[in-house]
Parts: sequence; C-alpha cells; structure tokens
Amino acid sequence: MTEPLDTETPDVGALQERLARFAEARGWEPYHTPKNLVAALSVEASELLEIFQWLTPEESAGVMDDPEKAHRVADEVADVLAYLLQFCEVLGIDALEALSAKIDRNEHRFPVKDHQDRHSLK
Amino acid sequence: MTEPLDTETPDVGALQERLARFAEARGWEPYHTPKNLVAALSVEASELLEIFQWLTPEESAGVMDDPEKAHRVADEVADVLAYLLQFCEVLGIDALEALSAKIDRNEHRFPVKDHQDRHSLK
Amino acid sequence: MTEPLDTETPDVGALQERLARFAEARGWEPYHTPKNLVAALSVEASELLEIFQWLTPEESAGVMDDPEKAHRVADEVADVLAYLLQFCEVLGIDALEALSAKIDRNEHRFPVKDHQDRHSLK
Amino acid sequence: MTEPLDTETPDVGALQERLARFAEARGWEPYHTPKNLVAALSVEASELLEIFQWLTPEESAGVMDDPEKAHRVADEVADVLAYLLQFCEVLGIDALEALSAKIDRNEHRFPVKDHQDRHSLK
Repeated sequence: MTEPLDTETPDVGALQERLARFAEARGWEPYHTPKNLVAALSVEASELLEIFQWLTPEESAGVMDDPEKAHRVADEVADVLAYLLQFCEVLGIDALEALSAKIDRNEHRFPVKDHQDRHSLK
Repeated sequence: MTEPLDTETPDVGALQERLARFAEARGWEPYHTPKNLVAALSVEASELLEIFQWLTPEESAGVMDDPEKAHRVADEVADVLAYLLQFCEVLGIDALEALSAKIDRNEHRFPVKDHQDRHSLK
Repeated sequence: MTEPLDTETPDVGALQERLARFAEARGWEPYHTPKNLVAALSVEASELLEIFQWLTPEESAGVMDDPEKAHRVADEVADVLAYLLQFCEVLGIDALEALSAKIDRNEHRFPVKDHQDRHSLK
Repeated sequence: MTEPLDTETPDVGALQERLARFAEARGWEPYHTPKNLVAALSVEASELLEIFQWLTPEESAGVMDDPEKAHRVADEVADVLAYLLQFCEVLGIDALEALSAKIDRNEHRFPVKDHQDRHSLK
C-alpha cells in the first residue's frame, strides 16, 4: 500500500526550506541580503506586470486562455513568491502570520458597511 | 482533551479564501481585475523596497532590530502576499504548485557545480 | 528693456546641476550610489502607478480634471525625473542623448508598416 | 559657414514631440492610456534596477566601466525617459516645470542645516 505523498500540494514552510537549501548549495547566500532580495522581488513583480501592461481589463481577465501566456504568468508568480519567501527567511518573518494579522486589522479598518469609501480612504 | 487549532499557522488556501470573502463582502470585486491586482502587487513590493532604499547591505540585515521598522516590514510583506494570492485567486493559479515546479526547473538550470556562473547566466 | 529669463522653462542640464548641488549641500552624496538611486527611481515610478491602480482606462485619462490628483501626479512625475537625473549625474549618462539614440534604433526596429506586429515582437 | 545643428543635444520638447509622432505613425495611441504608460514606466524602471540588484554599492558605482553593461544602462535610461515623456504628453504635464517646482518646495522642506535629519523625516 502506497501513500500519495508526492501528489500533495507543498506547504509554504517546505518551499521556504527548499529555497534556502538551494541558495546554500550554490553559494548564493552572500548575495541574499534583505535589500537585494527585496529589489529582486520588486523586479519580478514588474515582470509580471509587464505581461499585462498593454492589455484592456477584459483582455487581462482572459490571459490564462493562451497556454504560452498562462505558463509565463505562473512562472512569474513563482518568482515573486520565491523572492518573498527568501526575503522572509533571511529576516525571520512568518509571511502567513503577517498576512493573517493584516486581514484582522483590515477587518476593523474597512468595516463592511463602509466599503463604498474605500478609495477615498486609501 | 482539546487540540490547539487556533494557534496553528494559517495555510495559504485558507488565507486566499479569506481574502476572497473580504473583497466580496465589500463589493471590491469589480476592481480586482488581474491587471489591477498585479499593479497593486508591484506597488506593494516597491513600498517594501522603499524601507531599504537608502540602507547599506549591513543596515538592511539588521532592519528587524528596530520594532517600528520590523512591524512596517511585516506589514508590507503581508500586503505583497495578499495581492499575490488575490491575483492567483482570480486567475485560478496555484502559487505553491507554480513555485514547486519552478524550483524543479531551476535545479536543472543551475546545477550545483555551476553556481559560480550564475550572474553571467542571468 | 527687460528680458523674460525667469519665465523660461528650465532645461534638463540646469535641473540636473541644481539637484547635484542640493544633495551636496545636505551631505546626501554618500547615499547616492547608482544602486540606491535606481531603487528610489523605481519606488517613485510605483508611487505614480499607485494613483492609477484601481482606475479604468477612461478614468485614468481624466485624472488631471481633479486638482488634488493633478497636483499629486505632477509631484510624482517630478520625483521620477529627479531620481532619473541624479542617477544619470553619478554615472555620467546623458539621458537626452540616450533617448535620441534609442528612438533612432526603434525607427529601424519597428518600421511603420509593421506596427500591427508590435505586441508579438515585444 | 556651417551650422552645428546636428551635433546639439536634443531638447526635451523635441524628443517628446518625436515620441508622439512615432506612436501616432504606428497606430499605438489607443494603447497609450495614462494607466498603461505609467505601468510601462514602472516596468522599465525595474528593468534598470535589475542590472543593479545583486551588485554591492561599490560594484554599482563602476557599472559604466563594462561597455556592454554601460550600453544596457543607457538603453534602460532611455526607456524610462521615453515612457515618462509619453505619459506627460497624454496628460499635458510639463515635466521640467514640475521638477523645478518640486526642488523649490524641497528647499523649504529640507533646509540645509537639517540635512542630518533626512532619514527620520522620510
């Protein structure tokens, strides 16, 4: 009887650990200052934006219908998440806890009845 | 005997679902086109970069020693992750699978023995 | 007979020189490495993007009709140009010559008759 | 008697006009909403940042010593300036006036004697 371990979705902690070992094995740690990693994160976020920069809102909603573009989008998503997790690794930040706490704060900051005021609050 | 469920780290799927309900309850879905969400993602990544822009590499490594800055960094990490997950939600992308597949590809692209060539390969 | 010198548009060289003296007078030069200046440039470009991130294309075209937003847009344009010129100053780049040469190259790269292929060429 | 017209540095107004005619001749104007142009501006600023993301401050200062990198840097500077000027063109913003006014304001905001407080003011 076999267990389907390899078909499970990887969790964030396992991926973060895998990224850390990947960098360590290649001697890349000296480059991985928080400042460099956050620069790389913002560069990757812009590469994702680049795919959408000339699209109408409607075209942007259909971007996954084109297999080549769908692959490119998923690839850039991976790059953004990779640098975000590496940044969190070197600074000891728990990204999931940070997001959970942020949603808690936003539930107070943007009560449901006031949603129409969002853009003036920003 | 009770299990300490509420002290566990939230998982990505639960956070992504919570963000979707949050936007839905406030009527924000019309704004959440993939194009708008990726623009917001890149803006938040830049807000994280802004904290580091004038720091030396050494200063950047110690940024969590200052509680006010540590809070600001974690808060921006949360914003980046929030927009990344909302972007993935509207396009049906599994961010963890995308990253896992990307690491697999990078293990072939950057074999351990060739690590010294990384920057010329980029 | 008076000369309307002070009503003329300032030129790029004069502004670049004024920015250099401004930084020098405040002892900011040690912070103005090319790497820091380009990080600041990208942060300011994102602050400009932030103004537009939730707008429809049509709303974005009317952004100058709101005096408060018009001022904010012009202010962020100034910040982007300021960091671009300071970056060019420290590296000895002539931004106007670089742009003129780039337009020359693009006139060959994108001949008028092929304009419909632009997005596949990118 | 010869006139050195072709050796003069082009001015910003002439470049902005040339960019407008370039886009018009290729039918690109429908793509050139302010929102799309500012997204493209931020993407180009990130492409410039990408060149510097793994460099030390010292390496970043010497980037023009490598002819291939020097060309790449100047090319990205041109792209940033091109999108900034096209953005200003469609919104009717005078970038040089905006910068001149901003320096005036900053001279009051950051008096010379207070330069040491800059980073806490940010």
